[in-house]
Amino acid sequence: MATTPAPPYLAVIFTNRQAPGNRIEYDHAASRMVELAQTIDGYLGIEAVRSADGTGITVSYWRDHAAIERWRSHPEHLDAQAKGRSNWYAWYELRVATVERASSYVQPA
Amino acid sequence: MATTPAPPYLAVIFTNRQAPGNRIEYDHAASRMVELAQTIDGYLGIEAVRSADGTGITVSYWRDHAAIERWRSHPEHLDAQAKGRSNWYAWYELRVATVERASSYVQPA
Repeated sequence: MATTPAPPYLAVIFTNRQAPGNRIEYDHAASRMVELAQTIDGYLGIEAVRSADGTGITVSYWRDHAAIERWRSHPEHLDAQAKGRSNWYAWYELRVATVERASSYVQPA
Repeated sequence: MATTPAPPYLAVIFTNRQAPGNRIEYDHAASRMVELAQTIDGYLGIEAVRSADGTGITVSYWRDHAAIERWRSHPEHLDAQAKGRSNWYAWYELRVATVERASSYVQPA
């Protein structure tokens, strides 16, 4: 769970399906991108889930549009985006959204 | 992949961790909730991924806040929400967001 501040803040919802093969290279790059995102000014958190069938949803959270732009245009991330299109993803959908309200629940011990 | 119209529209980002056990009952209820959501006026689509470790992200898409309110307050969904808190989830986080832009990619055949 990403620990995010009170809204509003931004969410980038990245829904994708891995292309066949390239799994080890992809997993390595995905871990590296999570590390890299955390170094960007305005990064708030990330949540990533992948199912056994290769479908994934990654939601990253950001303070403002400038932070997303820094992340989008980071040279190492641009490289990964290009490899994502040429090698790693059968398809993806990317949505940028403003989070307006949030609530959470934790089961009592 | 959910086929959604041009933005703006709303996204409900539901990040969660299953509690141990109850897996079959949960899977059945989760499938039923996906079916039920599709009957709500203003439903646009749903994307759901769960990893082997029990972490899940479900993103549902809606035309407007009134549609989300119809979904939130549907009696069968209210039952499921109560069971979710008492039985199924170790924790969850729910975020409501306005999608402002979207892009997609499909690998050429």
